[in-house]
Amino acid sequence: TLRDILVTMNAVDVAGIFEEMPEEKLPLLFRLLPKELAAETFVEMEPEAQELLIRGFSDHELKEVVDELYVDDAVDIVEEMPANVVKRILRQADPEMRKMINEILKYPDDCAGSIMTTEYVSLRPNMTAGEAIQRIRCTGVDKETIYTCYVTENNRKLVGMVSLRTLLFSEDEDVLENIMESNVISVNTLEDQESVAQMFTKYDFAALPVVDQENRLVGIITVDDAIDVLQEETTEDFEKMAGMAPSDKPYLRTGVFETWKSRVPWLLILMLSATLTSMVLTGYETSLAACSALIAFIPMLTGTGGNSGTQASVAVIRGLSLGEVEFSDTFRVVWKEIRVAVLCGVTLAACNFVKLMVVDRFLLHNEGVTVLVAAVICVTMVFTVLCAKAVGCLLPLLAERIHLDPAVMASPFISTVVDVVTLVLYFQVARAILHI
Amino acid sequence: TLRDILVTMNAVDVAGIFEEMPEEKLPLLFRLLPKELAAETFVEMEPEAQELLIRGFSDHELKEVVDELYVDDAVDIVEEMPANVVKRILRQADPEMRKMINEILKYPDDCAGSIMTTEYVSLRPNMTAGEAIQRIRCTGVDKETIYTCYVTENNRKLVGMVSLRTLLFSEDEDVLENIMESNVISVNTLEDQESVAQMFTKYDFAALPVVDQENRLVGIITVDDAIDVLQEETTEDFEKMAGMAPSDKPYLRTGVFETWKSRVPWLLILMLSATLTSMVLTGYETSLAACSALIAFIPMLTGTGGNSGTQASVAVIRGLSLGEVEFSDTFRVVWKEIRVAVLCGVTLAACNFVKLMVVDRFLLHNEGVTVLVAAVICVTMVFTVLCAKAVGCLLPLLAERIHLDPAVMASPFISTVVDVVTLVLYFQVARAILHI
Ligand SMILES: [Mg+2]
Ligand SMILES: [Mg+2]
Ligand SMILES: [Mg+2]
Ligand SMILES: [Mg+2]
Ligand SMILES: [Mg+2]
Ligand SMILES: [Mg+2]
Ligand SMILES: [Mg+2]
Ligand SMILES: [Mg+2]
Ligand SMILES: [Mg+2]
Ligand SMILES: [Mg+2]
Ligand SMILES: [Mg+2]
Ligand SMILES: [Mg+2]
Ligand SMILES: [Mg+2]
Repeated sequence: TLRDILVTMNAVDVAGIFEEMPEEKLPLLFRLLPKELAAETFVEMEPEAQELLIRGFSDHELKEVVDELYVDDAVDIVEEMPANVVKRILRQADPEMRKMINEILKYPDDCAGSIMTTEYVSLRPNMTAGEAIQRIRCTGVDKETIYTCYVTENNRKLVGMVSLRTLLFSEDEDVLENIMESNVISVNTLEDQESVAQMFTKYDFAALPVVDQENRLVGIITVDDAIDVLQEETTEDFEKMAGMAPSDKPYLRTGVFETWKSRVPWLLILMLSATLTSMVLTGYETSLAACSALIAFIPMLTGTGGNSGTQASVAVIRGLSLGEVEFSDTFRVVWKEIRVAVLCGVTLAACNFVKLMVVDRFLLHNEGVTVLVAAVICVTMVFTVLCAKAVGCLLPLLAERIHLDPAVMASPFISTVVDVVTLVLYFQVARAILHI
Repeated sequence: TLRDILVTMNAVDVAGIFEEMPEEKLPLLFRLLPKELAAETFVEMEPEAQELLIRGFSDHELKEVVDELYVDDAVDIVEEMPANVVKRILRQADPEMRKMINEILKYPDDCAGSIMTTEYVSLRPNMTAGEAIQRIRCTGVDKETIYTCYVTENNRKLVGMVSLRTLLFSEDEDVLENIMESNVISVNTLEDQESVAQMFTKYDFAALPVVDQENRLVGIITVDDAIDVLQEETTEDFEKMAGMAPSDKPYLRTGVFETWKSRVPWLLILMLSATLTSMVLTGYETSLAACSALIAFIPMLTGTGGNSGTQASVAVIRGLSLGEVEFSDTFRVVWKEIRVAVLCGVTLAACNFVKLMVVDRFLLHNEGVTVLVAAVICVTMVFTVLCAKAVGCLLPLLAERIHLDPAVMASPFISTVVDVVTLVLYFQVARAILHI
C-alpha cells in the first residue's frame, strides 16, 4: 500500500511528494504517516502547506506533532504562522516546550540565539564516563544531538565539552573533569549568524554551544542548521552583488510586488548616478563632433572596464567573506591587481588594435577608424582596465573597513563608477593624440 | 610555557598562529606539540608550510604524523606535494594506509570517490546492539566517525545504516537487522561532488555512504568535508558569474600570471563581441548626427539594461543552484519577470522623465533635451528593462537545459547582449518619435 512505501522513505522525500499533491488530499495523506515520520515530514514542508495542515488538525493531532518537534524547528514554524495559528500551537505545546519557544523567540533575527536549540545533553564535571553514558541513555532521547555533550556547573556555567566518542573510548571510571575538553569554543547569544556559520566551516564542529554574557550555557547550534545559514548568507551575497535587496523567500514564492520592491531601489540609484556619464559626454560634445568615429567604441570601452572591475571586486568580495582577505592586506591586493591589470590591459589593447585594423577598417570599411583613432582606443583600454581593477579591488576593502557589506560593491556599482572614469580617460587620451 | 598554551588550543588556531611565524621557526615550534595535536595542526596548514615541515622531518617524525592522519586528509596533502615528497610520505605510511591512499587517488577530481574516506565502522546484520557497541569501542578509535555505522554483508554489499544513537537507545539484545535503517541513501563513487554537497543540505546527514556500481560500500563522506565542497562550489559560481575561470587556490596565494590567465579569456571574448555594438552605432550614425543629444544617454540606458538583466539572471542562477527553480518552471519564471519588468520599467521611466526635465534641461541647461527627446529615452527605458529581464532569466535556463553551467550567464555576458538590444531599441524609438 501507499503507507508501506511512505514509511520506508526519508521525511525530506515524503515532504517532496506531498508538495506535488493537490492541497485537499494533504490532510488525508498526512494521517497515513506514523507519528515520528509525520512530525519530521511536517518540519520539511513549505509554510503554506504547514498552515493548511494545522488548520485541519484536531487539537489532539496538533499536540502529537508539536510534541515530536525539536524546539528550534518549532520556532521556525511559529515565526511563519499567523497569530491565531501560533496561539493554537503554543496552547498545545507542553509548558516546558512553550517556555523554550518563547525564550528563543525573544532573540533578534540573524543572531546565534535565534538559530539555537535548547535541547542539549548537559553533564557534571564530577560524573564518571560510565555515569555520563548512563545519563545520556536516560535523558538523551529528545535531545537534538547526543554526540557532543556539555559539562556545566550548578549555575549552568559552561566548564567543558565531551564527545560521546571520548566517553565510549574512556574507562568507565574516568571522571569527566579529567577527560573533557575544558577550553570550549563557544559563541555569545547575540553573535551574528554569519560568523557562527563561519566557525563551523573553520573548526568542523558538529555542534557549537551558545552562552550568555556570564558564560552560562543557554543552547546549542547544530551543523545542519549552520549549513542552512551558510546557504542563506550566500544567497544574500548573490542578491546584494546583483543590486537587489536580500529576500528570505525562494524565488518562485516571492510575489511580483515584493520582487519589484527589492529590485527597483538600486536600479533607480544607479540610473540617477548615470547623470554623471551624461554630463561627461555633453562636456566633450565638441570633441565628439570633431571625430565621430569615437562614438562607436564607447560601449566596448565601458563594457570592458566594467567587466575588468567586476572581476577584481568579486574576487575580493569572495576572499573577504571566506576570511582569505582582510583589510590589512589592502596593499598586497592592490599591488597584485595592478600587475594583473597591466597584463590584461596590454593583451586586450593588442588584440583590439589588430581587430580594429582588420575587422573595422578593412572588412567593415569604417573609414573613421584610422591608425590614430585605433591608438586612442587601445591606449584608453590599458588605462581603463588599470583604473577599473584598482577601483574594483579597493571599494570592497573600503566598504569592509567602514562596516558596510562589501557585497554591494559588485558589478552594478562598479560598472557605474567605471563608466565615468572610462569616458573621461577616453576623451583626454583622444584630445592628446588627435588634438581635437 | 609556550607548550602549555599550545596544548590547550584547537588545532585550527595553532595552525593559524604557525602561519604567522617565520618559516625557520616552524620545525622547532611543531616539535613542541604532542603527537595527536601535531597531526591535526599539520592538516590545517597551507601546502607550502606542510612541504617545508616534511622536508625537515626525519623518517621517524614523518611516520608519526602520517600514522595519525585520516586517509582523506592524507590524500589532500599528497595531491599538493611534489613527486619526491609524495614518495617519502607513501614510504612511511603503513601498507594498509598506502593502499587506501592509492585507492582514493585513482578517482577523478570533483567526484564523490575523491572526497571520501575509507575509515568507517562496518557492522553485520546479525549482530546485536550490544555487540555492535562493543565492536565500535574496539575498532572505532581510528575511524573518521563512529556516530553513523554501516551494515554490510560479507561481500561488502551495503544493506543498512544504524546510528550510534539508535544503538544506545536500543536494548542490548536487539538484532541490527531489526533496528537498522534499511533504505540507505547513498551516492555512487563517480557522482559529482556538487550534488553530493546538495544531498547534505537536503537531508541534514552527518555522513553519506559511497558505493560502487554493485552497491558495495567503498567509503563515506563526512559533513565537514561536504561543507568545504559547498564553499568551493559557491566560489566557483562567484568566479564564473564575474567572467573568470574558476581557480582552486585562495585569492592571495594565486600568482599574477595565473590570475591573468583566468581573467583574460572572457574579457577578450566580451570585448570582441562588442564589435556588434560598434556596428549598431556606426549604422545609425546619421540619426546620431541629426540629434546629438541622444549620445549623452547611451551609457545610462545600456547601464540600466545591464543592471536589470543581471538582477533577473542572478536570481535565476541562484534559484537553479539551490534547486528552487528548474527548467520546467521556465514559463512561470518568464511570466513573473515580465510583470516585474513592466513595474520596474515604468517606475524608472517616470523618474527619469522628471530627472531629464529638472536636472538636464533646467539645472544643466542642456538645450538638446526636449520633451520629445526625453520621451524617446523613457520609452526606450521601458522596452530595455523588459528585454533585459527576459534575456536575463531565459539565458541561465537555456544554459541549464543544454547542460552548460548557468553561472556563466551572469552580469558580463548579459550586459554585452543587452547593450546591443538597447542600442537597436533606442535608435528605432528615436526614428519613430523624432522622425530622424
Ligand atoms: Mg529564526
Ligand atoms: Mg532554525
Ligand atoms: Mg572545514
Ligand atoms: Mg535543528
Ligand atoms: Mg533541517
Ligand atoms: Mg547577513
Ligand atoms: Mg554577508
Ligand atoms: Mg581530494
Ligand atoms: Mg538542511
Ligand atoms: Mg575528512
Ligand atoms: Mg577539515
Ligand atoms: Mg563544479
Ligand atoms: Mg556549479
